[in-house]
Amino acid sequence: MIKSILVAGGDLRQTFLALSLKGEYNTYVYGIDEKYYADTNTCECTEKYDAVILPIPVTNDGETLFAPFYKDKISLSEISSKIKKGGTVFGGKFGKSKEYFENQGFETVDYLEREDFAVMNSLVTAEGALQLAMEESPETIFGQKILITGFGRIAKSLARILVAMGADVTVCARKKSDIVWAEIFGCKGESFDILDKNTDFGIIFNTVPSGIFDRRRISLIGPDTLIIDLASKPGGVDFVFASEQGIRTIWALSLPGKVAPVTSGEIIARTVKNIIEERGEGNV
Amino acid sequence: MIKSILVAGGDLRQTFLALSLKGEYNTYVYGIDEKYYADTNTCECTEKYDAVILPIPVTNDGETLFAPFYKDKISLSEISSKIKKGGTVFGGKFGKSKEYFENQGFETVDYLEREDFAVMNSLVTAEGALQLAMEESPETIFGQKILITGFGRIAKSLARILVAMGADVTVCARKKSDIVWAEIFGCKGESFDILDKNTDFGIIFNTVPSGIFDRRRISLIGPDTLIIDLASKPGGVDFVFASEQGIRTIWALSLPGKVAPVTSGEIIARTVKNIIEERGEGNV
Amino acid sequence: MIKSILVAGGDLRQTFLALSLKGEYNTYVYGIDEKYYADTNTCECTEKYDAVILPIPVTNDGETLFAPFYKDKISLSEISSKIKKGGTVFGGKFGKSKEYFENQGFETVDYLEREDFAVMNSLVTAEGALQLAMEESPETIFGQKILITGFGRIAKSLARILVAMGADVTVCARKKSDIVWAEIFGCKGESFDILDKNTDFGIIFNTVPSGIFDRRRISLIGPDTLIIDLASKPGGVDFVFASEQGIRTIWALSLPGKVAPVTSGEIIARTVKNIIEERGEGNV
Amino acid sequence: MIKSILVAGGDLRQTFLALSLKGEYNTYVYGIDEKYYADTNTCECTEKYDAVILPIPVTNDGETLFAPFYKDKISLSEISSKIKKGGTVFGGKFGKSKEYFENQGFETVDYLEREDFAVMNSLVTAEGALQLAMEESPETIFGQKILITGFGRIAKSLARILVAMGADVTVCARKKSDIVWAEIFGCKGESFDILDKNTDFGIIFNTVPSGIFDRRRISLIGPDTLIIDLASKPGGVDFVFASEQGIRTIWALSLPGKVAPVTSGEIIARTVKNIIEERGEGNV
Repeated sequence: MIKSILVAGGDLRQTFLALSLKGEYNTYVYGIDEKYYADTNTCECTEKYDAVILPIPVTNDGETLFAPFYKDKISLSEISSKIKKGGTVFGGKFGKSKEYFENQGFETVDYLEREDFAVMNSLVTAEGALQLAMEESPETIFGQKILITGFGRIAKSLARILVAMGADVTVCARKKSDIVWAEIFGCKGESFDILDKNTDFGIIFNTVPSGIFDRRRISLIGPDTLIIDLASKPGGVDFVFASEQGIRTIWALSLPGKVAPVTSGEIIARTVKNIIEERGEGNV
Repeated sequence: MIKSILVAGGDLRQTFLALSLKGEYNTYVYGIDEKYYADTNTCECTEKYDAVILPIPVTNDGETLFAPFYKDKISLSEISSKIKKGGTVFGGKFGKSKEYFENQGFETVDYLEREDFAVMNSLVTAEGALQLAMEESPETIFGQKILITGFGRIAKSLARILVAMGADVTVCARKKSDIVWAEIFGCKGESFDILDKNTDFGIIFNTVPSGIFDRRRISLIGPDTLIIDLASKPGGVDFVFASEQGIRTIWALSLPGKVAPVTSGEIIARTVKNIIEERGEGNV
Repeated sequence: MIKSILVAGGDLRQTFLALSLKGEYNTYVYGIDEKYYADTNTCECTEKYDAVILPIPVTNDGETLFAPFYKDKISLSEISSKIKKGGTVFGGKFGKSKEYFENQGFETVDYLEREDFAVMNSLVTAEGALQLAMEESPETIFGQKILITGFGRIAKSLARILVAMGADVTVCARKKSDIVWAEIFGCKGESFDILDKNTDFGIIFNTVPSGIFDRRRISLIGPDTLIIDLASKPGGVDFVFASEQGIRTIWALSLPGKVAPVTSGEIIARTVKNIIEERGEGNV
Repeated sequence: MIKSILVAGGDLRQTFLALSLKGEYNTYVYGIDEKYYADTNTCECTEKYDAVILPIPVTNDGETLFAPFYKDKISLSEISSKIKKGGTVFGGKFGKSKEYFENQGFETVDYLEREDFAVMNSLVTAEGALQLAMEESPETIFGQKILITGFGRIAKSLARILVAMGADVTVCARKKSDIVWAEIFGCKGESFDILDKNTDFGIIFNTVPSGIFDRRRISLIGPDTLIIDLASKPGGVDFVFASEQGIRTIWALSLPGKVAPVTSGEIIARTVKNIIEERGEGNV
């Protein structure tokens, strides 16, 4: 039964995450300067906690917690000393620290690997991508010719918004059933062959992380096109070549934390609650 | 290489299917009375065809073709005599006829099992379900409290339309990620626990084919609620008990062929074209 | 101050109207057979009422109330005998009865002339038009080429729904600003000149009541087009000629009462409440 | 008959306006530094033009053209010397220059006063307001409680987008029929009385230009609310008091030119074309 939760390290998202949990759990924040607190309790460091929620990523060096908004370094061992025996460590991207915590007898749960988290996050990413597009484009979204490559979660969330705003959206996808879904969503559906043609999209949103925009395809893109690459590493665009061709390209990583830290924190909180509920460990 | 296609048996969908293929293939219709022809060629029965497209279902008795719009019986052996050696037999639900055709050396392809077909068909089913609801309900869709159980293809297509029309839509689903998707689609997302509460939905659309509306849950439903069951056999509602309780329940099977035969035929045609294209057998 | 209201005559809408008012006013129903009552009180005919709500139309012959669901004739003088001195008579299309009631010292208010009523009613009409189109067309609304003539209230409500369902909607209008609005609503905007061209719309919804579809323009319409005329008398289509040309034409009058009597009754109730509130006569 | 048009002064919008006209008219640009040209011709100053399009505003001092992107001052008399006798002067906000041009025998047309312009412009303003809201709010638009005051053109365009993005939108309006329209658009409709209650909107968009947010009403707004005032002068918010209360308020004037100069220029071009077409002076 989880009753007390320590939220440690990370950025503003962590404070809003803590705020979201506060009503149901004894929640404490640690490893973030107090001035960033969002009406959350300060840390009561004498107790041990049933669970701890660590940030994205948990650690960069494998030894200290990722805590950019804190004056001191916090070692992973300090964190583990605050968790009750058999407690749970939630985090996003553990890297080597996964082994570390499990060797100490704690269970680790990576909320980034949850489908519910990914879906919620896709919506925040889509809004962030829209914001970027609006800031960078001298035209309205309404009436603009836009291409989305791929039709996974982010593409779906983005397509819904763009279509609703009156854009002329084309989706290219590999699976025939995704092409059909794109059409049901109000887009034109195409295969990836469209990338081999000379088109005149105002904005291209890429969601495919495998270098699909190579030199040959970039050569077919006009200089007024804006490319927003939403794919995780290694990205989908040959940025150097695109830049040489005078094509503006933005590789938009980690949008959720940047454009909507409150919602991003709430999403992690909701995911953690879902996990706890599914395991029957709720504080109810 | 597929150049000639025989479309045999079935209902109006088959004639529109033939019409859709006509531009790209030599297409002939057989086993449907000529008065139902949709500007399609008559059968030239002297040739053998590269492929044949059979209806849904292919056969009821395992020996004759399902051909309700034709005066005579057509045996499966007559059909197989019209196909070239090594040719392809497309159909929807072969049953025992699958073995029959394969034993004759033909390849069978069931288009009902294709994901692209299922997605396109979900849209037609959703429109049919909407039409039924509008016909049966004395209230507008706008403003009405509606429940959709499950969040598969049909539910997604239906939810999009109902939300756009201003209904107050709740979706209940098992997977947390489906609940999130439902919210992104503009619905309220709930677990199936909502079925155990006394609610006041004007319309309930069921898409779960496993008897989820049992006596206990039906007892919680008010007499003004309309239940439209879109689940395939065995359906999701105890119809007898619902009827005893004075709750109107419609088990809406095979909506696409009934409410939109033209579009249904075109969808089969598009699926067949997709299959041929994927196998590199296109007539191009 | 209005405390008691008599709802008299008319069809099912009147019983749902009475049901909607019941929470706030002493409401009685008269001139409708009891078996149609929607959980409303029966008439207590000994009192006189502060207001009476009469149906659409109030009367056909100028002497008796329009009461098709009642066994007896009810004279207008019987109705006026039930209203308090200086009371209010609400109705839809009074015709000559307006003068009659005003001569008796009552105030008459025609709710059909209210803008709020007209807007609410446009939504119900739009849903009814959609239902008709779905019933009559063998294709899905999704993907279908549809023309709407005019861009008043009904056209706006209808365009919203059709676009959301994935139709390819063109609106033709006279005012340039209406053409722009149609585009913002996701339609193509055109002038009426489009009616003089040979087009291939699957469905045409007319909302312009001035014979815009004359012989010449009907000659340009293909035989597969369905025309749904939503215009009030005299309508916008030369029906005889259209029929001779084999073009299906439906003149859809009075849709709200037919397809959604509950909502139609609620809309009249809401309009009457708005009127009472604006006059500061609310029962609060 | 208008064949040649001079586009003079103003900002980037003017160059895109010129680009839009180029296909149909001999179009020249003057009073903007060449480096801002959008593939438009340079001025051929030896001719006189059939019409001239001046910027928003035409002039600030009544004597020189508003030309912030040009090195020199351009007097209004220089402009009038370039127009053919009886030619037309299009502009946005003439101020005193209206009299000046008319005294010279030219016709003046203010495109800002056109309904078609205002509708198109409302869409651009709405997108700009959305962009501002996204930049300033740490939460997603999805799920956020948003209030829009008034339901004119800008409010309608904005409401459509916000509802489509999944916001929980309330509109307050004076006219009952506007409240109904807001509901049909998917919003909650309220009277202005809602401003006198303690509410918890994340964002308030004001479109009413008459100081409706006075001290008393601002006192009811929480410190986390963001107010975006879209009303023209004098605006609708007591900015000084709001700021004292720690409530972030942005008075967002002239959004179209800032966030979407290309589209804004195209809109002026389309309006001018509409005017020319209506007067039967088109170059066709």
